[in-house]
Amino acid sequence: MTTAILLSGGMDSTTLLWWLKSQHPDRPIHTISIDYGQRHRVELGCAAALAQNLAAHKTITLDLNTIGGSPLTDPRLAVPTAEDQRQIDTVVPFRNMLFVTLAAAYCETQGIFDLYLAPVKDDYPAYRDCRRPFYDSLEQSLRLGATRDALFTLHTPFVDKWKSEVIALGLELNVPYADTHTCYEGLRPACGQCNACSERIAAFKANDARDPLPYAKGVGF
Amino acid sequence: MTTAILLSGGMDSTTLLWWLKSQHPDRPIHTISIDYGQRHRVELGCAAALAQNLAAHKTITLDLNTIGGSPLTDPRLAVPTAEDQRQIDTVVPFRNMLFVTLAAAYCETQGIFDLYLAPVKDDYPAYRDCRRPFYDSLEQSLRLGATRDALFTLHTPFVDKWKSEVIALGLELNVPYADTHTCYEGLRPACGQCNACSERIAAFKANDARDPLPYAKGVGF
Repeated sequence: MTTAILLSGGMDSTTLLWWLKSQHPDRPIHTISIDYGQRHRVELGCAAALAQNLAAHKTITLDLNTIGGSPLTDPRLAVPTAEDQRQIDTVVPFRNMLFVTLAAAYCETQGIFDLYLAPVKDDYPAYRDCRRPFYDSLEQSLRLGATRDALFTLHTPFVDKWKSEVIALGLELNVPYADTHTCYEGLRPACGQCNACSERIAAFKANDARDPLPYAKGVGF
Repeated sequence: MTTAILLSGGMDSTTLLWWLKSQHPDRPIHTISIDYGQRHRVELGCAAALAQNLAAHKTITLDLNTIGGSPLTDPRLAVPTAEDQRQIDTVVPFRNMLFVTLAAAYCETQGIFDLYLAPVKDDYPAYRDCRRPFYDSLEQSLRLGATRDALFTLHTPFVDKWKSEVIALGLELNVPYADTHTCYEGLRPACGQCNACSERIAAFKANDARDPLPYAKGVGF
């Protein structure tokens, strides 16, 4: 049974790939990344590199700049820092819904009916489209909207896990976290200041573990 | 109350625009077209021209060629003719779901909560994503996935009407059908052979009306 994973190149989806491989070593996997004009597009190269030897990798293009409204894709807007408490400002409207639907369209052309993705519990407050009731509904929409009657399933095994728990699992599975990308600013070494960096640093701290990723001087630990 | 319409430039959505204007002459309207690499991209120009003086028009780009699988976007595949009885081959996986979600994302940036679209009864057999149960589910997904809790509504006033009934309504409303585009081959004069042309011709015939659109020699009436 071939399965697919939405792989951003970040910590959560990379851990998901390693976990799925550990659970089903012989199952063919397609990894799907979305090039949506993200400021941190360096993650796309990370995703492709991480998938190598593990999965068939596909990048799908989606130009969200034609919609606008988010600093993650609009170069005129500043990325809010963690102190800003404006995580909601980094939301691209229906971003996950678009990603999942595009991935599902690709899956349909490949005869794949199981799509894995990695929303985590930390995303609940700011991102309504990271909650399981949303994915239940989306799964139903995909089943009703597919070209042919098919039992398409959205798997979100980490949806009730905190990011720190996902990292704990990944550390056990030897996920190469140095090769993942998190920083919203797209910086390597990472800025260590944006929401994404702050959450990553906190998740490693919660595990008393060292993040192998290089950070800008004076940041991280 | 500002509303939005998914306007392809074809007969059904153009009739919807004229109908909505007749129902609510003072309501501001945004028309949204999707440039998805369609072979019949001439419809995009028709949509923009039809919207002029009636609505604020927005074209959103979605490169479905990166997914592949449909002759509507893949130049290597032939468009099936009506005789082929292979209307299902013209389906782009989750095309309507992607269009509606992209339009909803644009609506969210504009503070619009009502989106009109024009699936018709003729589309039921081949296109599962033209049925109201699908749109009920999609509406629920959009409500659950929106950035903020909002009562986003998908309006499909023609979903239980046959295309011939929609044309009957449009003829009453003086819809400029000569300025719409239907042919899947993207031809003007229209080919008159593809599924889209055949359905259009039949809908005018059912109304004993003359289609003002020019067709290739020897086709239409």
